[in-house]
Amino acid sequence: MIKLIATVCILALFGLCNADIQANRLFKLLKSKHSRNSPNNYKWMVSEEATDEYSPVYIAPQDGLAALDKISALPGQPEGVNFSQYSGYVTVNPNAGRALFYYFVESPTDSSTKPLVLWLNGGPGCSSLMGAMSELGPFRINSDGKTLFMNDYAWSNVANMLFLESPAGVGFSYSNTTSDYHKSGDKNTADDAYIFLVNWLERFPQYKTRDFYITGESYAGHYVPQLAYTILLNNKKTNQTVINIKGIAIGNAAIDEELDQKGMYDYLWSHAIISDSTHDAIFKYCDFASNSTSTMCNAIINKVGNEMGDVDAYNIYAPICVTPAERNTSAVPGSVTSFDPCWQYILEFYFNDSMVQKALHAKPTSWDLCSGDVDAQVPITSSRYAINALKLPIETAWRPWYLNKEVGGYLEAYKGLLLITVRGAGHTVPSYQPQRALSLFSSFLGGILPPSS
Amino acid sequence: MIKLIATVCILALFGLCNADIQANRLFKLLKSKHSRNSPNNYKWMVSEEATDEYSPVYIAPQDGLAALDKISALPGQPEGVNFSQYSGYVTVNPNAGRALFYYFVESPTDSSTKPLVLWLNGGPGCSSLMGAMSELGPFRINSDGKTLFMNDYAWSNVANMLFLESPAGVGFSYSNTTSDYHKSGDKNTADDAYIFLVNWLERFPQYKTRDFYITGESYAGHYVPQLAYTILLNNKKTNQTVINIKGIAIGNAAIDEELDQKGMYDYLWSHAIISDSTHDAIFKYCDFASNSTSTMCNAIINKVGNEMGDVDAYNIYAPICVTPAERNTSAVPGSVTSFDPCWQYILEFYFNDSMVQKALHAKPTSWDLCSGDVDAQVPITSSRYAINALKLPIETAWRPWYLNKEVGGYLEAYKGLLLITVRGAGHTVPSYQPQRALSLFSSFLGGILPPSS
Repeated sequence: MIKLIATVCILALFGLCNADIQANRLFKLLKSKHSRNSPNNYKWMVSEEATDEYSPVYIAPQDGLAALDKISALPGQPEGVNFSQYSGYVTVNPNAGRALFYYFVESPTDSSTKPLVLWLNGGPGCSSLMGAMSELGPFRINSDGKTLFMNDYAWSNVANMLFLESPAGVGFSYSNTTSDYHKSGDKNTADDAYIFLVNWLERFPQYKTRDFYITGESYAGHYVPQLAYTILLNNKKTNQTVINIKGIAIGNAAIDEELDQKGMYDYLWSHAIISDSTHDAIFKYCDFASNSTSTMCNAIINKVGNEMGDVDAYNIYAPICVTPAERNTSAVPGSVTSFDPCWQYILEFYFNDSMVQKALHAKPTSWDLCSGDVDAQVPITSSRYAINALKLPIETAWRPWYLNKEVGGYLEAYKGLLLITVRGAGHTVPSYQPQRALSLFSSFLGGILPPSS
Repeated sequence: MIKLIATVCILALFGLCNADIQANRLFKLLKSKHSRNSPNNYKWMVSEEATDEYSPVYIAPQDGLAALDKISALPGQPEGVNFSQYSGYVTVNPNAGRALFYYFVESPTDSSTKPLVLWLNGGPGCSSLMGAMSELGPFRINSDGKTLFMNDYAWSNVANMLFLESPAGVGFSYSNTTSDYHKSGDKNTADDAYIFLVNWLERFPQYKTRDFYITGESYAGHYVPQLAYTILLNNKKTNQTVINIKGIAIGNAAIDEELDQKGMYDYLWSHAIISDSTHDAIFKYCDFASNSTSTMCNAIINKVGNEMGDVDAYNIYAPICVTPAERNTSAVPGSVTSFDPCWQYILEFYFNDSMVQKALHAKPTSWDLCSGDVDAQVPITSSRYAINALKLPIETAWRPWYLNKEVGGYLEAYKGLLLITVRGAGHTVPSYQPQRALSLFSSFLGGILPPSS
């Protein structure tokens, strides 16, 4: 039985990855879902069945490639880096010319015995370098967009962390067959990620039998379980690489679109972001179960944006990025606990530096934090509605968990699944609560519940 | 028509004034309400009618007393204090020997044209020196419990601020007739506060015709409107002092006990503090409309405390006071934006210093932040339920208000009443969001809505 964990932050967290003001984009998704003239916004979500091109799984020789992927140093990195970093491409389909980009960080201590953990950001269409550089990786980028500093609460302290840009079209990952970008879909994304993994394990054979976990957030609520399922399915096949998967963890998981929307509007109301009358009208006029629309529902959803105002949908209590071009925020340089609200612009500035791209062994390109034009929204109410829909028996009743004598959040253990919250975190949990997030991650890897006092 | 404003903070905010861990006390009230063996917890709330002793209103000569009340300097106050401070007692009933203590701060600039504003903390039973020294007064106390620093966002920047410890038995206010302490009640509290006011205006006659406002928070949701009502009633009487009341403002107002409780449990659930099953059970087994109890309701309410854990009920996302005795917190000395979670202990330390009591012209006594053993709880959901129950027509639809290009909160204007929130504030709004609170207060005094962009 693999461990399954679902984390949610207590604070807001709909938004997902956009270089624009996120709150505005949040409602674009909703509006497009309820519009007769919906643009083709769902290219990452197309649920078509995978083609047969992936079977049998393509495995290429990888000898010597790991050494070529080794990063000598990232531009702007601080002194005293005591761990190995790698990055590069793994081809997942040679005919189409499709290759996925990864960034891999080994633990500074005992990396040979620590587990291997894959991290996936969501979106859909967002780069996992977001997680690497603004959430849980070993470095954060200073507000200058050029220099890095160490993240004391990097998850690589307790695991070897593999960040994958997925599917092709996201970040540095690409396909030479343009039509690939229009048929991504969850199933193809999982199949490509699986092929990436088995080839990556050929490239780094010392990790072949290592304990393996998949983690991610937001729309990775789709990616993570589907990849786990693909792995478990393929593990049963004869002569197939067996991946030693031990558990999955998803933060603020987008899982059930209908319940996500219901939960989001309940969250906005109960957190005093929208009015009583708008909340009532949404549930009166909008039908989230269907993709059909109504003029009244469109009108009400437009009203939500006006009522909400210019708030960071990632974290409704956080400061917003007022002057993105200058990046002269109140963030304290080198402080992992002082989070720069302009982090999206900072990431895009850094990864578009040609020296950075060269150091990463990436193809010169225009790197976006998120590709496509789609967003997701997953507050705690949504997660609860989605878990309730599973009707799982409760094994550990709701209780607080503690770190440094403070409540770190709450947990409720269901049969085969753990719901756990991080108090005071925004959508990107390790950005806003790095210490609590690392504590949680350690408990997860240890297979234990975080402390009750 | 007087202006009426109800503010609520967006974050938690049940708790009220206790030197103990507040979250534990919160549930004492609820339990006592639903226990057959309820202790006499409601001494501040007894709703008996006022006796006739207050009519006609007692007015004593006050000549020369203002000069005696002038504070030369508070122990530990910083250099450069450029305003006048006064404190002392006003007798409200000479036969009983009942006197109320006040602290008055004049505005540093143009005090002769600025309005007079009364501030009342709630509880019931809590001292308004809490508001003065940890929320909106000109000074805050450093973590050493001995030195003061200037609050850049003091409300005395825009008004002359009068802090009243009320009723007798709270803080330095006293009665020589012990039985007075057992018959406080809202009506008597309002009558005493009214007698205080007319006598205080005799002592400071230059304020007699000044624009006057009453402000307060929490259980002052009872005190403020009842005092305003008493003033309006007495203003009509011949030969009675006319107090030029212009408006009232209440933060996190406790108004309707039944709806407050319903709102609190909805808030705890929607903010991921209690489980689905406990939330459901509360509404199944507890009847907040009656004061009767049930074994099941008692059991469920006990469970709420366990599920919630050791969280600051004033502000669920704030750090708690882990080591009160040492007061060695992470608060930055002299910083109004870095709030010491051990502020309750710091206040009690400061006001129990004999030099401080002497400087304040207070009788030597053991000063408590709150007297009695009662608490209240008022989250945003409660405020909304209570306002909805009034069925007032909406005059300005729900919208955000802005300060420094950030959303400061939200507002909705009803006929004769304004609901306005402060984003990211705890129960004691000016403690956690001093700049937003001052901005709001200025708009209130100016009779305008805060800016929409």
